[in-house]
Amino acid sequence: MELKRSPLALPFPDMSAIDGVTLRVARARYKDWDRADLTYAELAEGTASAGVFTKNVCCSSEVELGRESVAQGRARALIVNAGNSNAFTGYRGREAVEQIMAQVADELGCETSQVLVSSTGVIGVPLPKDRAREGVSAVLRAAPCGWEEAAAAIGTTDTFTKGATTAAMLGDTRVTLNGIIKGSGMIAPDMATMLGYIFTDAAVEPTFLQHCLERANAQTFSCITVDSDTSTSDTVLAFATGKADNAPLASFDDPGADAFMAALADLCRQLAHLVVRDGEGAQKFIAVTVTGATSDESARRIGLAVANSPLVKTAIAGGDANWGRVVMAVGKAGEPADRDRLGIAFGGHWAAREGLPLENYDERPVAEHLAGREVDITVDIGLGDGRATVWTCDLTHGYISINADYRS
Amino acid sequence: MELKRSPLALPFPDMSAIDGVTLRVARARYKDWDRADLTYAELAEGTASAGVFTKNVCCSSEVELGRESVAQGRARALIVNAGNSNAFTGYRGREAVEQIMAQVADELGCETSQVLVSSTGVIGVPLPKDRAREGVSAVLRAAPCGWEEAAAAIGTTDTFTKGATTAAMLGDTRVTLNGIIKGSGMIAPDMATMLGYIFTDAAVEPTFLQHCLERANAQTFSCITVDSDTSTSDTVLAFATGKADNAPLASFDDPGADAFMAALADLCRQLAHLVVRDGEGAQKFIAVTVTGATSDESARRIGLAVANSPLVKTAIAGGDANWGRVVMAVGKAGEPADRDRLGIAFGGHWAAREGLPLENYDERPVAEHLAGREVDITVDIGLGDGRATVWTCDLTHGYISINADYRS
Repeated sequence: MELKRSPLALPFPDMSAIDGVTLRVARARYKDWDRADLTYAELAEGTASAGVFTKNVCCSSEVELGRESVAQGRARALIVNAGNSNAFTGYRGREAVEQIMAQVADELGCETSQVLVSSTGVIGVPLPKDRAREGVSAVLRAAPCGWEEAAAAIGTTDTFTKGATTAAMLGDTRVTLNGIIKGSGMIAPDMATMLGYIFTDAAVEPTFLQHCLERANAQTFSCITVDSDTSTSDTVLAFATGKADNAPLASFDDPGADAFMAALADLCRQLAHLVVRDGEGAQKFIAVTVTGATSDESARRIGLAVANSPLVKTAIAGGDANWGRVVMAVGKAGEPADRDRLGIAFGGHWAAREGLPLENYDERPVAEHLAGREVDITVDIGLGDGRATVWTCDLTHGYISINADYRS
Repeated sequence: MELKRSPLALPFPDMSAIDGVTLRVARARYKDWDRADLTYAELAEGTASAGVFTKNVCCSSEVELGRESVAQGRARALIVNAGNSNAFTGYRGREAVEQIMAQVADELGCETSQVLVSSTGVIGVPLPKDRAREGVSAVLRAAPCGWEEAAAAIGTTDTFTKGATTAAMLGDTRVTLNGIIKGSGMIAPDMATMLGYIFTDAAVEPTFLQHCLERANAQTFSCITVDSDTSTSDTVLAFATGKADNAPLASFDDPGADAFMAALADLCRQLAHLVVRDGEGAQKFIAVTVTGATSDESARRIGLAVANSPLVKTAIAGGDANWGRVVMAVGKAGEPADRDRLGIAFGGHWAAREGLPLENYDERPVAEHLAGREVDITVDIGLGDGRATVWTCDLTHGYISINADYRS
């Protein structure tokens, strides 16, 4: 099945090199694809690492071993396999990952725990060790490549290649943050997986990098949803080479730490949005902002209940300002809410306030807003100061076609 | 939009009269429908009542007042309005319900709290008091009708009329249990609502009736899902007129109590299945049985995670035995599970055991099973004795068409 480029796609940005990061790609032929499917990032000695991983309890060996590696705090290399997720493959799958880690560590003369591995693609088929071995040999000898080539090689059923870049001033030192990401297209019997990688030349202590990544994740990757289904392999890793030679950041008391945190959060938000923009069958990009909740976390949960509701998502697909479905979704979130204080707005136009439809409600500007590619829904709970924004896409015939009509 | 009769529809059963229950229908013209839309059940003096209601915190006034009525334990009448859910209508909606309760109580010479009211249909439009008043006047003077007529009048976008019947022997006394139900079709901007009503001539103390209903509900209505969206008006009420003259049941120590409980649970299961069979766009009826969980409740939650997964539901729609998606759904349920102990079967044929795909897995009989109208998925967690079965339907283009392509 040929997937059409998402109408919400963005062009790949200009991304400059990151000192201390060398990218290479090769063909391991995990699938019958006429393209590179194995990506390698070599990282300068002393590179700090951090990671956040899927909460799915049936996670892959890559995720289990990745958690252990990240706990060490330093990394020398990243390998990404595309076309086979190696999930639900027991000890045989784990052996394949350990083989890759050993092969790369041997080449670099580092510890195996300093090599991180991700895999994405078909489930239940152990990663073939022979192809992995030949692929890794090839990639170690390959010529360096650019960001777009690497971002393309980690993709599976993505309809466009995804990258983002930003920068921050740490005092007088300018640092660059680049990210590439894949998700969330899929072909049966694969499952959608989000893999994201962030690279910076800033000097950051591993513990603080982990803290910043978790904080950025909570406001970005943890606030997106396409279909409420959580992959067994979701992974976001951050690497800081330290080549920018700023005074290493170790806490928010350090000068420049706030600027770094803001830049990292901005990059994560950009990357998270790109995944939503490639949501299966997506025709509209939807932002759900919840205000007046009893806490930020409560606001996030309410936002996700709205963003995951098939009835809300199909209403938006149909251009229908169906605030009743939004009320329903708020009520089922299990969070504090009072029906008679609720307000619902589309594109800044209130449809209901204080639990009642607006008497002089004019549907025309709302209908115009919903006809566009970007839809804003605001839900005011009216109880407190908690707020959050979550992002999703609409639910369309395209989603059904991708996931039901075709088999790979 | 004309909805096609569900391919999973069952014929309306023969249902005998229940002594102490008189049914009538009338036209209140809540919508522009050429059919009865107001249903009345008159109940003999002393009828015990019980109820379970939506957990949606943005519930309707009908649900709020219904909870208070059921707490009293005795009922004389039920009114069901179809075409307007009266949800999210503030004090004006509440006044309309109170008016109906007063009008019927005045006629019967009972307390207003002994009159139960339900409404289903469009949200955000207060139930028009004048139409309700005229409709109630008309229904009080209407000729008695049968079960099928009453079941048809409570429907909204249902594609078939739903009723079920069963019986139990309480010692030498035969008691009958009849039920009617509506759900879960919908047209924008309505939201799906499940309303179910159970009538029996058995003599049952209200507190025990409530206990039995909650127990039956936990294994039946709480184990079905069409799209994971919880209506603001879901209601199931049970009425026991006592006309069968058995010794009133007050606890499980009473003779016949177990037989009554079994019959009630059977009736609730039949009614719950009818709702799934009319799920929007449903082409297949899916039973998900979870065994080996750490508790029954944990098994139910895992079952619902599988049954609510859009990726599992679209796979079944496509006839794809995609056990990888089932593994993913088990893992995201947040319940205890061990990837390397999981087993997944379709129609009794194991696809994976002990966390690995079966070496000699033969997909042919599985594909034949998935080609039928009824699909069984078994998930063995391998950790304990907890088990549960939940029921759902597949996710098809029909669901998108009903909810996105048309506006009412």
